[in-house]
Amino acid sequence: MPQRRVTLAQVAKEAGVSSTTASFVLAGRTDMRISADAQRRVRETADRLGYRPNLTARGLRTKVTHTFGLVSDVIATSGYTGDIIRGAVDEASAHQRMVFVGETQGDADLEGKLVRELLDRQVDGLVYAVMGPRAHTPPDLLRHRPTVLLQCVAEGFDAPSVMPDDTQAGREAARALLAAGHREGVYAIGAHHRVEEHPEGVLAGRARMRGVEEAMAEHGLRLAGAVQCSWEPAEGHAAVGALLDSGARPHALICANDRVALGAYQALHQRGLRIPEDVSVVSFDNSDLAAWLLPGLSSVDLPYYEMGRLSVRLLAGSEQRDGVHLVPMRLVARDSVGPPAP
Amino acid sequence: MPQRRVTLAQVAKEAGVSSTTASFVLAGRTDMRISADAQRRVRETADRLGYRPNLTARGLRTKVTHTFGLVSDVIATSGYTGDIIRGAVDEASAHQRMVFVGETQGDADLEGKLVRELLDRQVDGLVYAVMGPRAHTPPDLLRHRPTVLLQCVAEGFDAPSVMPDDTQAGREAARALLAAGHREGVYAIGAHHRVEEHPEGVLAGRARMRGVEEAMAEHGLRLAGAVQCSWEPAEGHAAVGALLDSGARPHALICANDRVALGAYQALHQRGLRIPEDVSVVSFDNSDLAAWLLPGLSSVDLPYYEMGRLSVRLLAGSEQRDGVHLVPMRLVARDSVGPPAP
Repeated sequence: MPQRRVTLAQVAKEAGVSSTTASFVLAGRTDMRISADAQRRVRETADRLGYRPNLTARGLRTKVTHTFGLVSDVIATSGYTGDIIRGAVDEASAHQRMVFVGETQGDADLEGKLVRELLDRQVDGLVYAVMGPRAHTPPDLLRHRPTVLLQCVAEGFDAPSVMPDDTQAGREAARALLAAGHREGVYAIGAHHRVEEHPEGVLAGRARMRGVEEAMAEHGLRLAGAVQCSWEPAEGHAAVGALLDSGARPHALICANDRVALGAYQALHQRGLRIPEDVSVVSFDNSDLAAWLLPGLSSVDLPYYEMGRLSVRLLAGSEQRDGVHLVPMRLVARDSVGPPAP
Repeated sequence: MPQRRVTLAQVAKEAGVSSTTASFVLAGRTDMRISADAQRRVRETADRLGYRPNLTARGLRTKVTHTFGLVSDVIATSGYTGDIIRGAVDEASAHQRMVFVGETQGDADLEGKLVRELLDRQVDGLVYAVMGPRAHTPPDLLRHRPTVLLQCVAEGFDAPSVMPDDTQAGREAARALLAAGHREGVYAIGAHHRVEEHPEGVLAGRARMRGVEEAMAEHGLRLAGAVQCSWEPAEGHAAVGALLDSGARPHALICANDRVALGAYQALHQRGLRIPEDVSVVSFDNSDLAAWLLPGLSSVDLPYYEMGRLSVRLLAGSEQRDGVHLVPMRLVARDSVGPPAP
């Protein structure tokens, strides 16, 4: 950078103390018996001259660079998961750290290169995040480094994982319908009980369905059916359209995510069915879309911000580290759930 | 990091050369007359031992840290603009640089702190980005530093700006309707001609409306009307509902963005009007939503990825720097525009 830096020596000289004393004061050391007056003079002089510590040099000296890395496949750009970054950056900021964000777009070569770059910069720790919860082994380079896995479970990899509590989310969704009086005609759309081609759906989908089934079983109830589909609007639209055209008369739909729910809304509207008077809809993600739909969609919130924060909190060492850390998911109730049609 | 680093001295010793020679080889210096054989030995040894250069130390020595900073208000987490980060990271990667991403959430204190932190880390340059195009002066700290402004115009601030070409975008939108045969009954929804309370709408909205009016004037035509509203679904829904209920019979709507268009779709559907048979709709942003709606929404793409790339290209010095750089916007045609109802 072109601007000339004010040096520690200049600050010390102006404040009338030694460079060592100035350095101790500005590093916040309190174990050095420096007079309150000298401390004040150093701080005021540093402020007045615009002195900024050279963190690159300090990092070299202290072996702590005050940076974390966040390596992800597509979370920085997916639009759904940007809150992970916001949470990570906020928490890092609370620990006076900054975050390097790198994205691999799922490319293994790029991932290796990125991780190496971050290690070269001697980050104090790394968050390794993937777009949707799944089993995935991070690169070997990260073994025995301070690493936290986000939405990612890796067997035999000794790092804590931060995961959304999808089973509990499934319970929340089912309980919203049960509380409204639903006992039959409840269908799961995009259940992903057995669909392996959507890795993001396997872990989350299975866990959510387990939660749904548990909550219904508590009342001696079962789903009327589960329709498989990809987690996109067009596929949700087609799946719900086919279900309705098959002669089924669902009273409620539990959609795999808000995009599937959008497709369900479209299919219901096209057939003149009203939400929630004719069919209740509940969903997962609580994305912007849930608030934008008419009627507003009741959806279980994916706690991306909290997951980002917790990951960095684990790295910063202010939380116990081992094992899988489940972050609770809560239903955000809007207007898409009502009592069953008579 | 706990793992012991392999040092340059170890590599040099194993390869049978001096540390200076090893350093020159690994830095890619070709001006030093080192034998091809010695070069090969150094590279192979470095690979075998897993040597990684200490970039923190190198940055201190060369005054080039190979990092850029990206400071934004909310672009990292808005969901719309994540592609800016992706573009910036990709372009930085092409220049062997990494990107520090910091987000201020619009808080001026946090912004100052973040910028200072980045300068402390001696980044080689900074992208200063804001969520929507607007006039906004970056912190004084950035004056005379290598800075590129993104979606931000600051008078008297000697840094290049990267902006979407919203005037041309307005022309594209109007031309799509003109090409389908529309001559009358074209309304702008969320025009923001005079609405000052939405800073993000002022620059973009005005520029787009100028483009719309220019394109129509080329055919001796004018808008039938412009309805003000905030750029959100509920407001678009209310504005279009009020327009329809006032007795107006629009043939086409130019919506300020895809969220407003979603509201327009909802208002049209509720009144039994079909898209595009009864009313054509065209919009701006080309967000995911545009592809999800039924029928698919024709929308002018906001080139976030390209803007991110260009910003870093300007910082990296491979492009001429001065002035405002307009990035072209193109219509992505789907199924929401048809010939006017007879």
